[in-house]
Amino acid sequence: MPVYKAPLRDMKFLLNDVFDYPGHYQSLSSGGNATPDIVDAILSECGRFCEQVLSPLYQSGDEEGCQLNNGLVTTPKGYKEAYSQYLAGGWQGLSAPEAFGGQGLPTSMGLFKQEMMGTANWSFAMYPGLSLGAMNTIQLHGDEQQQQTYLVPLTEGRWGGTMCLTEPQCGTDLGQVKTRAEPQLDSSYRLSGTKIFISSGDHDLTENIVHIVLARLPDAPRGTRGISLFIVPKFLPDGQGGVGERNAVHCGALEKKMGIKASATCVMNFDGATGYLIGSENRGLECMFTFMNTARIGTAIQGVGPAELSYQWALDYARERRSMRALSGKKEPDQDADSLIHHADVRRMLLTQKAIAEGGRAMLYYAAKLADHMVEANTQGNHKLADKYDNKLGFLTPILKGFLTEMGYEATNLGMQVFGGHGYIREHGMEQIVRDTRIATLYEGTTGIQALDLLGRKVLLSTQGGAVREFTFKIANFARKQLTNKQLRPMAVELLKLTAQWNFLTVRVMLAARKDRDAVSAAANDFLMYSGYVTMAYMWLRQATVAVDKLANGGTESSAFYQTKLHTAEFYYERLLPRAQAHATVSVHSTT
Amino acid sequence: MPVYKAPLRDMKFLLNDVFDYPGHYQSLSSGGNATPDIVDAILSECGRFCEQVLSPLYQSGDEEGCQLNNGLVTTPKGYKEAYSQYLAGGWQGLSAPEAFGGQGLPTSMGLFKQEMMGTANWSFAMYPGLSLGAMNTIQLHGDEQQQQTYLVPLTEGRWGGTMCLTEPQCGTDLGQVKTRAEPQLDSSYRLSGTKIFISSGDHDLTENIVHIVLARLPDAPRGTRGISLFIVPKFLPDGQGGVGERNAVHCGALEKKMGIKASATCVMNFDGATGYLIGSENRGLECMFTFMNTARIGTAIQGVGPAELSYQWALDYARERRSMRALSGKKEPDQDADSLIHHADVRRMLLTQKAIAEGGRAMLYYAAKLADHMVEANTQGNHKLADKYDNKLGFLTPILKGFLTEMGYEATNLGMQVFGGHGYIREHGMEQIVRDTRIATLYEGTTGIQALDLLGRKVLLSTQGGAVREFTFKIANFARKQLTNKQLRPMAVELLKLTAQWNFLTVRVMLAARKDRDAVSAAANDFLMYSGYVTMAYMWLRQATVAVDKLANGGTESSAFYQTKLHTAEFYYERLLPRAQAHATVSVHSTT
Repeated sequence: MPVYKAPLRDMKFLLNDVFDYPGHYQSLSSGGNATPDIVDAILSECGRFCEQVLSPLYQSGDEEGCQLNNGLVTTPKGYKEAYSQYLAGGWQGLSAPEAFGGQGLPTSMGLFKQEMMGTANWSFAMYPGLSLGAMNTIQLHGDEQQQQTYLVPLTEGRWGGTMCLTEPQCGTDLGQVKTRAEPQLDSSYRLSGTKIFISSGDHDLTENIVHIVLARLPDAPRGTRGISLFIVPKFLPDGQGGVGERNAVHCGALEKKMGIKASATCVMNFDGATGYLIGSENRGLECMFTFMNTARIGTAIQGVGPAELSYQWALDYARERRSMRALSGKKEPDQDADSLIHHADVRRMLLTQKAIAEGGRAMLYYAAKLADHMVEANTQGNHKLADKYDNKLGFLTPILKGFLTEMGYEATNLGMQVFGGHGYIREHGMEQIVRDTRIATLYEGTTGIQALDLLGRKVLLSTQGGAVREFTFKIANFARKQLTNKQLRPMAVELLKLTAQWNFLTVRVMLAARKDRDAVSAAANDFLMYSGYVTMAYMWLRQATVAVDKLANGGTESSAFYQTKLHTAEFYYERLLPRAQAHATVSVHSTT
Repeated sequence: MPVYKAPLRDMKFLLNDVFDYPGHYQSLSSGGNATPDIVDAILSECGRFCEQVLSPLYQSGDEEGCQLNNGLVTTPKGYKEAYSQYLAGGWQGLSAPEAFGGQGLPTSMGLFKQEMMGTANWSFAMYPGLSLGAMNTIQLHGDEQQQQTYLVPLTEGRWGGTMCLTEPQCGTDLGQVKTRAEPQLDSSYRLSGTKIFISSGDHDLTENIVHIVLARLPDAPRGTRGISLFIVPKFLPDGQGGVGERNAVHCGALEKKMGIKASATCVMNFDGATGYLIGSENRGLECMFTFMNTARIGTAIQGVGPAELSYQWALDYARERRSMRALSGKKEPDQDADSLIHHADVRRMLLTQKAIAEGGRAMLYYAAKLADHMVEANTQGNHKLADKYDNKLGFLTPILKGFLTEMGYEATNLGMQVFGGHGYIREHGMEQIVRDTRIATLYEGTTGIQALDLLGRKVLLSTQGGAVREFTFKIANFARKQLTNKQLRPMAVELLKLTAQWNFLTVRVMLAARKDRDAVSAAANDFLMYSGYVTMAYMWLRQATVAVDKLANGGTESSAFYQTKLHTAEFYYERLLPRAQAHATVSVHSTT
């Protein structure tokens, strides 16, 4: 099985040429240390770690899976050692505040790290990934003592974290949560109940695990307004940075899953476990939702990373494997057959993967700048500004999470398809990528939930279409500037049409919803996919614009690189973007 | 985990109301015994066997898989006993000639049986399914002695069969086959080489296994014109209907696969194994291709069956599981939340599954009539007529195999999506259906190969577009008749437009191909998908026509059934068929 190669060239193209991250970082207070040299060094070093340490454990982790013995979970062979290296590199604290031992770099840097780690080995990346969720929660809503106690070991990575939301009777519908929290005299709580689907619920990578748990106080109101948030550590802190008494929270079972088998998905039993309230009573869901956007963008990475990985391996295979002759005549006459890549239909599959991986990455990096701004504003106590960026990000989040995970799944299936029957055999790893990626459209809110969040909440309820107007205004301004360039004009014209159509569709659905509220749910999925295709088209025009510029001013050794970018953009507009029209047609003709 | 329920009502709707199978069977010489009563009894009995015997082994077979010990393969627990019941029921010979102990019923009856078996338990159904391939080959190309020796035990099901084509270096490109066959003095051959991906290559269900093997004579020309076909039995026949000496063909390894784990996928080593030539030397590929259409329609079933199964289970779950409230207001106010089915987006997913399963079934049953006619003509020695039907079937085959397996995969993924995170957990069975179905777009020719077969061979090369003209003429005639009906008119108008467009696209691609032959390969996939959507639209209009008629003349207790058929047809036209336009756009704008 091949290994992952960190696509540093593609990443830097986006960072330096398309999105001007150097300038962006200069404008951030946390960006002082993120000079181009430092960013370069960090990306290279992270890439090396992912290529050499995480990627080789990808397949063995799937074969071996996690084991539960006597209530303790062990991760697959090599995971502990890899995690030690991760710890030694200080990777967990990359974007965490220096006050808690982090490196204080911008949030976006953490996202680039997550992308590379998740591409090389998604299951592994989930352990530190879940910890980030716990860290964010405590940082935003914990009191000072909680922050001192938990954030330092979490930032070091000595301790891990989880998010305990789902219960057997409810996942999306958290108002149905039943886990009880009884107040104690010492101001702690005793938690009892069962949580399921808890990623990293137990494992052997860290000396302690900090569970963030949704539970209900005895006198809490019914539904979502009666849910509180608690810290429940596996071991109670000893007050000196170490661990003390074992808490009454245990892994009762490991779920058998389709994929991400090296990630421990636990049933967690709370049997009167000691917990500490975060934030105010009955305000738990609000606390949870404050960093929902970041968590969902973290999951959107799973649309991009596996598409990239599957593309890399499929491309290698298509260059090596020979079958039949190209229709236009022998391409390798001295061989028994031509390489797969000489077949136009195989190139279609590979280019679709490439367009998704690189278009999706651009969407992530575009959003990451907004996340940086939001965090910066929050840090500076400018909540109005933070809200502004959070709203921009909140509009993009369901598009990224919903659209990119669906597209990523398509891309990984195409990679498998390039392998023919061999794609179905485990040793090649292609089917594992498909199985691993399949979860992405389900957790952190299914695609259906993302679609409702986008259309129902972000577009209609909160902004009466304003979110679409604002974003399309921006896109149209950009597209209009490219009309004078011969190579870009066809794409720019198409994109301009789409910005108008997006607003038209929004109004149509709004009117339909006045007659029948279910029309929103009926149209939501197609509206989401439509939005995704247009957003990705914007990203491809931006990339094409840079490529055309570089080629015009160039003749450098990179011209093949830019030529390919331009070609991929054109491929996207010709072969993938037309699907947007099917979604447009459907979203205005959707019986409920 | 729920069990499979044979959809007899839906099947009979197609057989009796839509396609007039009773009349069709009366017109066939093999149809004398296929009276409506007999057909009914057979379908019910087969359904019972699939529901009670095969379905319960679906999940356990996946968990346990096949085992290889000392060169012998054992199937999962219960498979042997189930196969005994299959044998006792005489199911293997259902459509086989009476001369060899079969029941001599029409070919289509065998297809209905395969559909139900394949839906209940695809892995199990592959064992007798592969035997049918071997039976067909020997019946069409074997000499009288070969037929006497092999066809009786194969028809009884005492012996099994395989097709040994693929080798490590080649699958699609069989011209690269290397397995050698050395002629012996006794007119037998000694075969040496390695075959991979051999389904049912070894197992414990039958006392003997008859391998049909592609190999190359020492003096054979290179490429596809130097390939011959051989019978290589696991045990040499003892001349009295039993088995004698063990032959030098062994299973060297079992492939580890993404799914269909209860089906033994073997590496088969031929170490000077005794074989017998079928047909003429160097004409092996032609012999293979004579029943390629039937084999591929057999695989097309895998698009329909799993879609049906996944739909059944997702529908049950959507009725039981409660989450959130419908946007249009509480539907079950006395409960904590509404059932999933009250959410329009969930209904979208379920109806998509239903439209694919029932539209796809109609496509199969439509094609099955052509298969009956072809077999009938062959039996009567009317090869000209047989060719005519074979050509009609040959045009539909890649559409059925390519389009339906892709759509089936989509449908099974939607079923999993209805389950949310629970869909990813093995115990619910939904992810198994996805994994099992994934192979369907790969084996028996990938979707890419089907697309090339359709556009390159069947449409352009053989008929210069005539195949499309002929089929669309038929569709348009039918659609035109429905224009006067108010309920059917919108669908009929749309379908008429599509018949014109299909021809237009064909001409466009033909012109593009004159400039660049690779244009065919570049456009093929979208042309295939387009063809599939239009063909399924035709099938849904036919079903809707019957439903409207029944409802108009009705008021029976079945009116809900027909109402749902009409509703599903409208859903298909409104929500799935618009995708055809994206494929149309792309297939005429496909850079190579």
